[in-house]
Amino acid sequence: MKHPVIALLTDFGDEDFFVASLKGVMLGINPLARIVDITHKVPSHNIGAAGFVLFAAYKYFPSDTIFLTIVDPGVGTNRRVLLVKTRDYYFIAPDNGILSLVLKEERIDALREITAQRYFLADVSPTFEGRDRMAPVAAWLSKGEPYEKFGPKTTLYEKTTVFEPRLEDGQILGRILYVDKFGNLITNIPERMIGEYAKRKDSSFILDPYEVKIIYGDNYSSVKKGDLLVLKGSLGLLEVAVREGSAAQRLRMKPGDPMNIRFGKHRKKI
Amino acid sequence: MKHPVIALLTDFGDEDFFVASLKGVMLGINPLARIVDITHKVPSHNIGAAGFVLFAAYKYFPSDTIFLTIVDPGVGTNRRVLLVKTRDYYFIAPDNGILSLVLKEERIDALREITAQRYFLADVSPTFEGRDRMAPVAAWLSKGEPYEKFGPKTTLYEKTTVFEPRLEDGQILGRILYVDKFGNLITNIPERMIGEYAKRKDSSFILDPYEVKIIYGDNYSSVKKGDLLVLKGSLGLLEVAVREGSAAQRLRMKPGDPMNIRFGKHRKKI
Amino acid sequence: MKHPVIALLTDFGDEDFFVASLKGVMLGINPLARIVDITHKVPSHNIGAAGFVLFAAYKYFPSDTIFLTIVDPGVGTNRRVLLVKTRDYYFIAPDNGILSLVLKEERIDALREITAQRYFLADVSPTFEGRDRMAPVAAWLSKGEPYEKFGPKTTLYEKTTVFEPRLEDGQILGRILYVDKFGNLITNIPERMIGEYAKRKDSSFILDPYEVKIIYGDNYSSVKKGDLLVLKGSLGLLEVAVREGSAAQRLRMKPGDPMNIRFGKHRKKI
Repeated sequence: MKHPVIALLTDFGDEDFFVASLKGVMLGINPLARIVDITHKVPSHNIGAAGFVLFAAYKYFPSDTIFLTIVDPGVGTNRRVLLVKTRDYYFIAPDNGILSLVLKEERIDALREITAQRYFLADVSPTFEGRDRMAPVAAWLSKGEPYEKFGPKTTLYEKTTVFEPRLEDGQILGRILYVDKFGNLITNIPERMIGEYAKRKDSSFILDPYEVKIIYGDNYSSVKKGDLLVLKGSLGLLEVAVREGSAAQRLRMKPGDPMNIRFGKHRKKI
Repeated sequence: MKHPVIALLTDFGDEDFFVASLKGVMLGINPLARIVDITHKVPSHNIGAAGFVLFAAYKYFPSDTIFLTIVDPGVGTNRRVLLVKTRDYYFIAPDNGILSLVLKEERIDALREITAQRYFLADVSPTFEGRDRMAPVAAWLSKGEPYEKFGPKTTLYEKTTVFEPRLEDGQILGRILYVDKFGNLITNIPERMIGEYAKRKDSSFILDPYEVKIIYGDNYSSVKKGDLLVLKGSLGLLEVAVREGSAAQRLRMKPGDPMNIRFGKHRKKI
Repeated sequence: MKHPVIALLTDFGDEDFFVASLKGVMLGINPLARIVDITHKVPSHNIGAAGFVLFAAYKYFPSDTIFLTIVDPGVGTNRRVLLVKTRDYYFIAPDNGILSLVLKEERIDALREITAQRYFLADVSPTFEGRDRMAPVAAWLSKGEPYEKFGPKTTLYEKTTVFEPRLEDGQILGRILYVDKFGNLITNIPERMIGEYAKRKDSSFILDPYEVKIIYGDNYSSVKKGDLLVLKGSLGLLEVAVREGSAAQRLRMKPGDPMNIRFGKHRKKI
């Protein structure tokens, strides 16, 4: 790898020594690694949020990027640590479902369980395998060590059920995948599910469970400041937003909540 | 550019996928770009705060640094995206006044509207032009692409009125530009406006509207822990501070508030 | 230095212009410096927390790393700024005790007071010596300038008393050094002080002052979700934790609090 990039995604926060320890270890092994923080502020132990953020960001990275994703409530147990190779990327992660969303899109080229102790730090702490096992492996991989060396082939891995949106009785039954820092509600509904309808003039939608009527817009400025809208978000998924405000606060909705969308007349306005 | 630096300033926060997407895009185009975060924690949609932080930091960066500054409530509308070249720097920003403070100091060498689609990602999202238009342009520019290529010349741009401090009836009428994380109140009053007076022994000032008497000090240790002082801040502007405390909390003042300073006797002590 | 690393630890926060100014200055002097953020979120003016985070992270960095550690309530006064060389590392810090924990482990090879003005920015602000004095020195040092050039030898420096755990009447008298973002209480008690006892089956401990019985575990999964345990943390020190929860909240304990541990039967359960 000529310009190796290692992208980090953890729930370690940015106020302690955890992330710095990882970076120190990696720079000691490969001083040329380009380390990029995706985020370290996934809510503690929240595998779902981590999986979503990874899913939203990974495909914008250059080929051969190594994603080191550590949200790992099972640290120190016998849960496995995986190295997944896809056509374009490498993913190092505990085997806890964190890669489920990504692996719906990416075909697995190779799957290894990371076991090769010679790459680990001398003293592996049962509470910080990120520093002592995963970071060194990421750094050695970025330095050109073949992925086959880090452990045996495996075929099994933990898959979290990913809820698929579906059409039922003229309604799209979806779910909120993620709430971003602006309070936008990112759903699992691809915009193409409403594609033609959205293009009609004055198309509007009704959101269950609140029976809220929502305008479809091209961008946040399609409505007045403070008004709700639904739009095609930057990931191609429907997003519910408030212009220069927070839809999450307005609707009191959160990740995992159902987001059902009906076409047609509204009954009540929020 | 031999060691190109791209400095990022956004209101994207550091908990989502936004910033990582920008970085992935840029590293894919120019693996040698040195990407530096100024901050991503400008309050959402707060153009004034972003403009101040940029103003406070930019001149410490090396020549040819490209500043990518994205606080962009108008994203997706027909507001323009600008590329400003000054003698030493490049600035890429939505045309919403975010560069006003900087452009009071820097002479514009060239001003372009960024329109050249061949540099954009294939699919430009109307909610995330930072990723799809601005980041790629910054990366191509850092790779040596001439700035003229990104779009046509323009001369007009949005200027926010920058409030100038003035002397009136023996009083300096100023304003709070920014509150930093220590709670220091950074004003728009250059220290030279009080220069000679400050050098007198036991010089003190009275702050309106509270009629607070404040000691002038050389540094925070000029007063006791917990006491108020006014001093020449690190930008050459007067700052009101509490030693190891927060002046913003003590005085309940915020950016935009007037900060008027009188010399002479105080009436009341807070 | 072939691949110089400068690691930053400050209480500047990540929302203002402070950290970016440091980085701009350093990249202007040495464009090849690899700048790594340890953290900028040490609580304002908290020298003890900064010293602990540095202590927890530094030894994972490659040789010749330069640690620039700025938590500096005495900025602008005549407190000195030190350059400490140990066998493997360089530390630049105000002389306020911030290096105390590190210097219990590292032998000082050379100790200099940073005074050589030719390395400073032209205009040194009495409120931001980090930008104007310390950052340039770190960058010049990373560029290969010999450490002797930055100022005269000195032997004295500020040492904060580091509280040592001790055994008394069958009880280990320790203290909480740090609370991490997960709410884990990191004590100053090396695991070897309880080593043999911990290895017994069903070993448990009683924590004063609450007389809480705590199970000793190998990792967080040794107890049920929400339960307390004590374990060997990633630094070799005892940590009190709640599985997927916060021990700091549960026990209402904070850095500096005594953490006394008795073996044997418990009296009361929390």
